[in-house]
Amino acid sequence: MVRNADNAVKAAFGQRVRDIRLKKGLSQEGLAEMCELDRSYIGGVERGERNVSLINIKKIADALGISPQEFFEPR
Amino acid sequence: MVRNADNAVKAAFGQRVRDIRLKKGLSQEGLAEMCELDRSYIGGVERGERNVSLINIKKIADALGISPQEFFEPR
Repeated sequence: MVRNADNAVKAAFGQRVRDIRLKKGLSQEGLAEMCELDRSYIGGVERGERNVSLINIKKIADALGISPQEFFEPR
Repeated sequence: MVRNADNAVKAAFGQRVRDIRLKKGLSQEGLAEMCELDRSYIGGVERGERNVSLINIKKIADALGISPQEFFEPR
């Protein structure tokens, strides 16, 4: 069962990744290389399609130079 | 390849879940029921064995009555 709340949490996370990536002036490809993840995976994360787990949350945060908690800050 | 950094992020998350659960006076079983997750899964999370993903991070945060960002606050 796909809950709306599940989609919302993935979408909010992805939007936050995109916002921070753009603020840092990085391309999806650049971020992907820094994370050692695939560019298409990063694209899926940003579109809210991926249920990202702790290890990749940390990799993406490290590549962006932020703490993982910044992904979850209320707007 | 299992990186030490990967284990560290899972362990830190699990310790934080345990600390907050205990502060709220909840058992693993009580938290598991509130999350609609299995007690053994919650046990694995707290032991740092689980690479928890966004949807379950949100479920656990909701059950504990906190924002997901509290799981990632520096000590």
